[in-house]
Parts: sequence; structure tokens; C-alpha cells
Amino acid sequence: MSELKNDLFLKALRGEEVKRPPVWMMRQAGRYLPEYLKLKAKYDFFTRCETPELACEITLQPIDIIGPDAAIIFSDILVIPQALGVKVLMEEGRGPLLPDTTTTQADIDKLQVEGVAERLDYVCKAISLTKKELNGRVPLIGFAGAPFTILCYMVEGKGSKTFDKAKQFCFTEPVLAAQLLQKITTATIEYLKAQVKAGADCVQIFDSWSGMLAPADFDAYSLPYLKQISDALSVLCPVILFPKGSWYALGQLAQTSTSGIGIDWNVPAIYAREQTPGKTLQGNFDPAKLLTDPATITKDVNKMIDAFGVHRYIANLGHGILPNVPVANAKAFVDAVKNYPNR
Amino acid sequence: MSELKNDLFLKALRGEEVKRPPVWMMRQAGRYLPEYLKLKAKYDFFTRCETPELACEITLQPIDIIGPDAAIIFSDILVIPQALGVKVLMEEGRGPLLPDTTTTQADIDKLQVEGVAERLDYVCKAISLTKKELNGRVPLIGFAGAPFTILCYMVEGKGSKTFDKAKQFCFTEPVLAAQLLQKITTATIEYLKAQVKAGADCVQIFDSWSGMLAPADFDAYSLPYLKQISDALSVLCPVILFPKGSWYALGQLAQTSTSGIGIDWNVPAIYAREQTPGKTLQGNFDPAKLLTDPATITKDVNKMIDAFGVHRYIANLGHGILPNVPVANAKAFVDAVKNYPNR
Repeated sequence: MSELKNDLFLKALRGEEVKRPPVWMMRQAGRYLPEYLKLKAKYDFFTRCETPELACEITLQPIDIIGPDAAIIFSDILVIPQALGVKVLMEEGRGPLLPDTTTTQADIDKLQVEGVAERLDYVCKAISLTKKELNGRVPLIGFAGAPFTILCYMVEGKGSKTFDKAKQFCFTEPVLAAQLLQKITTATIEYLKAQVKAGADCVQIFDSWSGMLAPADFDAYSLPYLKQISDALSVLCPVILFPKGSWYALGQLAQTSTSGIGIDWNVPAIYAREQTPGKTLQGNFDPAKLLTDPATITKDVNKMIDAFGVHRYIANLGHGILPNVPVANAKAFVDAVKNYPNR
Repeated sequence: MSELKNDLFLKALRGEEVKRPPVWMMRQAGRYLPEYLKLKAKYDFFTRCETPELACEITLQPIDIIGPDAAIIFSDILVIPQALGVKVLMEEGRGPLLPDTTTTQADIDKLQVEGVAERLDYVCKAISLTKKELNGRVPLIGFAGAPFTILCYMVEGKGSKTFDKAKQFCFTEPVLAAQLLQKITTATIEYLKAQVKAGADCVQIFDSWSGMLAPADFDAYSLPYLKQISDALSVLCPVILFPKGSWYALGQLAQTSTSGIGIDWNVPAIYAREQTPGKTLQGNFDPAKLLTDPATITKDVNKMIDAFGVHRYIANLGHGILPNVPVANAKAFVDAVKNYPNR
């Protein structure tokens, strides 16, 4: 494996001195790039995920085109339920559909944790290939969904504005919920370990729906499983936890073994810094701001870095990039961070 | 007008001593009650809103059936764009649709602020009739949508998970956005004043989508208009501001003339209390918790009141009641608050 030529991202996670923060964008691999949309028109979602050459090509596109300081492997958080034996359908423009929901003891007993990493070997193959093709240009991030977020899809069967059924399941069947969350957690740890073995330099855990939970319920249904994953992985590589919307839990997340904590654009920098001493923060540009223009983006990026500071900070969006963002605006975001010291 | 027999709700807003907190539930008028669903099957949405006898009947149903300490007039926040001259369609189960979006100078110039209160006289008639029928049993709450939330629907033309178009409009056309927000604000103030004149004892402003905004954008596109409304109305009756998701702005809201501040279930009581000295807090039970059972609801309501305290507190949900909540559970919520002192 060739040595990293740009290790700014890993330096920021280790708390080392840097001249400027590193920058990448959530969902930078895909969605808004014309080069990606061409592949999307040709191959369906799971073909893109399951073919290492395609996943590698999609992962590298933004590195060549907009030049961020880290790559993130192209995949999806729902490969875990799929590898546990649950059918996952992905219809373009309609979001995921899991026709067989997981809500009973029998449903949970059926889930096959053993062999999950082997069944997801295509992701590891994509990671190995991407590491080779990156040839040390930037680090590669692996990822998985957080157990609570995966439970949301497995119980609800599809996306939702409020995930009431998933929450009702947790609140009324706490024993089953704990079993399901533990199975997802165990599988996720094996899967992420395999990603690191294949070459991932860091792993990020996306808890996209944890913000649906009240603080006490976050403590019950999300935090213990994030902790398990962080503890198991942080001995191998830096970990970033991103429980979107769970601003109230930043102090608790700062007590875990994670190196980095992702925050959404609601969270003021000063509040986040107070809550998370010794951790690296990642975020938190409003994705809708990328629908403005390069001058506005540059101005607001500078303000953001002024607020967070250069040290222990990774410039990113506060959530995934929107599909309709002009490429010039995405590049303006990355360039603004790179030019920050030379303003 | 007969004197109020139960003025617990107004006492809490004035910061007076109470033995227990008052309780009501957002969207208590409708959605989950079989008695409401019967009327819903018979009359379309706007017929229900625009016929004072129907709006009155729907407003009173929960008072008779579950017994909260305040009534809220049955209406909708989108009556304001309608009264400004914008077509609003409401298809059952599909959410609102505004086929002609408001995004240009010409669109904004066309909006008719003058006469808004007269065109919404049917709401005031419903309020007068309801006051009479309530006969002093409990106070009656009037309401409106906050200007930013109304802008979201007028620009986007429909509901959205992220209201990107509405935010893009604000970020790229700040002058037009300010004009539109001001027109909505002026109309809303006239409308709420008329509600108070007709008998509303309190008004609540629902900023359902302000949580989509970063703090600096909340300062630009929401807060100034909430302040204007609060200042204009709080000389007439107590005001409650409910900017859902804008936890970061609680300290600023506490600096306004409002009596009450609504909070969602993400916000820990201790944080909310620290941020809002001298204000009455309203909330913040997770609506999905009403999908459990009366024993769980009672336990969690007691914990909630323990955390907020009895003084300057109105027990409520953290957002609207879900349509599929069993009536026994809604009643368990109200009863738990009423029985709090006798646990």
C-alpha cells in the first residue's frame, strides 16, 4: 500500500496541527455529478454497489473532479439488513423498500449474523481496489448505518418522516428491540472490521434518524450500540459518529472512544465545542446553501471555519449533498476550505 | 361572555401559582377521534374549516371526550395564503398543494394583505360560537402559522422533507424573501387580532419548519417576524411561540415579549429552563409515546412534570398528535397530568 500523500483528514482526527481543516462532503460519491448520473442510467443501484469496479469508479469521480481531502467508498447503509437475510428493494426516486419487516421474535431469530462480512465481501473488494487506484492521494473512509437507523428501516419497511412504527416497536417491545439492535451491532462490527482490513483508513457511523429520539430514548436505543461499535473499531482506525439531530447527546458522545463527531447545521460551533472537548468535530454546512452561488458559499465557509477553528475540525456538510447541486458550487465549497489560510 | 371556570392554562402563562400544570394536546381537535373521523368522511377539509358550526363541533369534541384544560380552534395554518389570494388544495392523505407558487416580485405584489381578516371572518365566527358553547369551561386558543413556515409552503408549493426550494429562495432572493415574510406577517397580525377580538384567550404561532434553518438563518428569516407578531399580540393576550426544532434559539425567544415557548421532545427540560428564565414552557412529550399504553404514558408523564416542575409549565406533546393514537391513550395522557399531585 503506498503511503498517503495527503493525510490532512487523519491528522485532524488525531488532533495534530494542520494549516487548514481537511474537507470532504457527505454523499460526494454520487447524486450530483453528471459522470455519476451516466453510470446510474446504465446500472441499477445494487449493481453499482456490488460491482467493485463500478463502486471504485464512483468513489474516485469526486476525487478527480472536485478534489476533497478524503474519499468515501460508494455503498449504502442498507447492505447490512440485506446481508442479514432481509430483502431490500431500491427503486430510483422512491427510496428503499423492505417488503418483509422485522418485528417479531421469529423475524429476529431468522437474521443471519454469521457470515455477514463474507456476504459483504464485494464492499471489501471495492475498498481494496479503490485504495489501489487512489494510490495514496487521499485516505479512504468506510462506513455503516448506526443500529438504530437500520432498525428504523427494518421495522418500518421504508423511509418515513417520523418513523412512528419503528419507535412504537422500541417503546412497546424493548426486549425484542434490544435483541434486534444487538444483532445489527454485532454484524456491523464484523463488517466494519473487514472494511478496515481491506484498506479503509477511517470508519463513519451514520445515525441518520437518531434525532427522532428524545434524550432518554437515545440513551436506550442508540448510544449503547454506537459505543460498542466505536470501542470495537477505534482500536483499529479513527471512528466518526454522526447521530444527526442528536445535539442533546454531544456531551455523552464526547465520553466515548470515538475520534470524531459529526454535527448537523442546527448546532452552533460554540455549543458543539463546549460539549466535546478533545474530540474532532465534522460538519456542518447547510446542504441547501450549496444551491446559492460560489461567492456566497465561500463567504459562509469562511465564517464556518472562523467559528469552529482550524484545529480538530473537518469541514463538511451538515447532511448529505442534495442531488440538484451544481458541480461548480460543490467545487466552490471544497476550494473555499482549501483557500482558507490564504484569504 | 361567561367567566372561566378553569383558568389553569392562563394562570400558567401568567406565571401564577398552580397545584398542577394545565394540559392540552396539539391537534387535539381532530385526527385521532372517531367522532371527528365521522365528520371528516362527510365534509371536505375546507368545508370543515369554513363552516363555523362544524369547526365549533370539532373544537369541542376533545373537551367533552378527553377533558384537556384548553380548547384550540379547529382551522389550518394555510388559510393565510388562501386569504392572500393563493389557491390551496387539500387532498385527504396527500397533504396540502399550492399549484401557483410565490417566487417572483410579481407573485408577491399580487398578494392582497388588505382585507385578510375580513376574508377569514369564518374563523372568527367559529371562535365566537365556540366561546359561547364552551360557556367558560376552559380557555380557547387561536393560532396561525409562523411567517417562515407559511413561506415554505408558498414557495415550495407542497410539503417537503427539507424545503430546499424554500430555503434556496431565501438564500438567493433575500430581498424578495423579506417582502414575502413581511406581507405574511402583516396579514397574520391582523388575522390574530381579529381572533382575539372574537374571543380567543391566547394565540399560538406554529413555526413547524424553522428547525430546517441554521441559527444565523433563523435570525434572518424567522425570528424578526415572530417578534413582530408577539409584540403586536402580547398586549392583547398571552402568546405562545412554537418554533419546532429551533432549540438553538431558545435564549433569543426568551428575550421576546412572548409568554410561552413550545419545545419539541429533543429538548431536555434542564436545558430549556436554563435558556428561558421567566417564560412558561409548553411541551414536550414524544407523540410516538402515545402509541404505547396508559401505564407507560402515565409513568413518562410523571417523569416529564418532575423534570419541568409544576410552575410556569403547560403539559403538551412535542408536536401534533399522530392520527393512529388510541383515544384511551390520549385520555391517559391528560389524566396523568391531572392526577400528578395525587400520585
